[in-house]
Amino acid sequence: MRIIITGDHDELARRRIRRAAGAAQVEFAADPGEGIELADAVVGKVPEPLLAKAGRLRWVHSPAAGVDGVLSEGLLASDITLTSATGNGAVPLAEHAMLLLLMLDRDVPRWLRAQSERRWERYPHGELAGKTIGLYGLGHAGLDLAAKAKAFHMRVLGVRRRDAPAPGVDELLGQDEFPRFLAESDYVVVTAPLTPVTAGRFGRAEFAAMKPTACFVCVSRGGIADDDALLDALRRGEIAGAGLDAHGVEPLPPASPFWSLPNVIVTPHNGATTRETAGRGLDILLDNLGRFVRGEPLRNVVDKAAGY
Amino acid sequence: MRIIITGDHDELARRRIRRAAGAAQVEFAADPGEGIELADAVVGKVPEPLLAKAGRLRWVHSPAAGVDGVLSEGLLASDITLTSATGNGAVPLAEHAMLLLLMLDRDVPRWLRAQSERRWERYPHGELAGKTIGLYGLGHAGLDLAAKAKAFHMRVLGVRRRDAPAPGVDELLGQDEFPRFLAESDYVVVTAPLTPVTAGRFGRAEFAAMKPTACFVCVSRGGIADDDALLDALRRGEIAGAGLDAHGVEPLPPASPFWSLPNVIVTPHNGATTRETAGRGLDILLDNLGRFVRGEPLRNVVDKAAGY
Repeated sequence: MRIIITGDHDELARRRIRRAAGAAQVEFAADPGEGIELADAVVGKVPEPLLAKAGRLRWVHSPAAGVDGVLSEGLLASDITLTSATGNGAVPLAEHAMLLLLMLDRDVPRWLRAQSERRWERYPHGELAGKTIGLYGLGHAGLDLAAKAKAFHMRVLGVRRRDAPAPGVDELLGQDEFPRFLAESDYVVVTAPLTPVTAGRFGRAEFAAMKPTACFVCVSRGGIADDDALLDALRRGEIAGAGLDAHGVEPLPPASPFWSLPNVIVTPHNGATTRETAGRGLDILLDNLGRFVRGEPLRNVVDKAAGY
Repeated sequence: MRIIITGDHDELARRRIRRAAGAAQVEFAADPGEGIELADAVVGKVPEPLLAKAGRLRWVHSPAAGVDGVLSEGLLASDITLTSATGNGAVPLAEHAMLLLLMLDRDVPRWLRAQSERRWERYPHGELAGKTIGLYGLGHAGLDLAAKAKAFHMRVLGVRRRDAPAPGVDELLGQDEFPRFLAESDYVVVTAPLTPVTAGRFGRAEFAAMKPTACFVCVSRGGIADDDALLDALRRGEIAGAGLDAHGVEPLPPASPFWSLPNVIVTPHNGATTRETAGRGLDILLDNLGRFVRGEPLRNVVDKAAGY
């Protein structure tokens, strides 16, 4: 059995991976390359042209929680099992979302500008308590964020996802109630994966349907918002602000207007970039390697048609 | 019955105050002034020289939650009842504390500098989950912060205060365990009032006893930390950073080194400055005015000897 592992792994991680793989042959590589013909499993992306040659391939694991980067049409059409690190960055991502909400609610850039100029500049600001947060995405990050929002005394709206329960969500709305979700949320927060259903879900009509005092926050993936529509909504005052960790184009180009729009906070897809996220991701990989070599069911199996 | 009300109140607030005071005579004034001789109650500070003339005075109400500004030695020695707006700003103050923790944990000023220069600068950072928060002060703000910290998956330490219960606090330590409180906390957060017991409680020895990776956060009152000792601890790397909304001297003078120290976030005693805080403060005042004129027991009565 032969397993190709792409990505950066230090010596300790490599030792742990080899141990988890047992008798299987582990090959560390920058990308799958020609060895793909003999590979039973690949950790990382298998480029479409290589996939056709991957006659033995039964398992692909995404080291990221979101699989939009690895889920090619060929992989979708195949019967190869796709798993992911889903959940590994959920908690720090929810922390980042709460940070962006607080920064927008209190205009933190204004305080930091005043600090850099040694100015004591007091001003009234909002409080999150009593406001409504609308969660678009009720996976690991969304549910952890719901619990945090409840501790902040917020009302929590969610949009139904499959039939999964949603603890911490005060009102779970159907897709047909999306207009109400938009109209009632003071903060619309996207934690959803990028899938055929979510791509472009927030466009001109959706931003226009939000309150002019509301903010849009995205911590999962760019492309779920139409960036041109978002820019126009911000410029026209159709919404009050945005906190963006995920962007349609990454890295965000220096010329992007998002960098300098007032009431927009830009972070560089950095919300879950913690040592702990990497550690939890490695734990999931090690667990699945053991399961694979023992012929046991894998965890975090992706519904490829749904895209998550 | 005559009640002097100091402070800023718009016309609507004045109407509500007059209504709550019923048959009592209400006088709005910048300060108590000569009318003090006939006053049964004062909302706001009664300067020490006026107190001697205030022969009828039975009640002083502090429109702030902390009474260090109004609790003169004369008031302390008298049998005049002191009440406060305690609790009115607790929730936004706890929001502010969580904001400062997240900003310190993720080095938010670095992201905002990069944004202002249109630079995509990703870096690994921490997560609050799994870290220990040490709460100095378990009043309204401290307990609300404890609940928030639990939703952030933090371990919560507290220092015992009277015999009040402390929901959300994982370990309630006695004053004799203060060294362990300092040694185990990744974030020491002060939400306590300024009293004879808390004044100067954090000095050289206390900062030296903290982890070099730990941060000190104060959102209640300056003077609880010895600012010179705090500055030295920050400069020497005895602690990693600080988030300060309350300062020993306010406004913080332009020459203060706190403005420009790396890893220090300064906000201008602005954590609870919301419309809702003012509204809750007015509600408490109206309730107590009604109780006073009806001869009922007042709420939020301050233990003057304890100072809160």
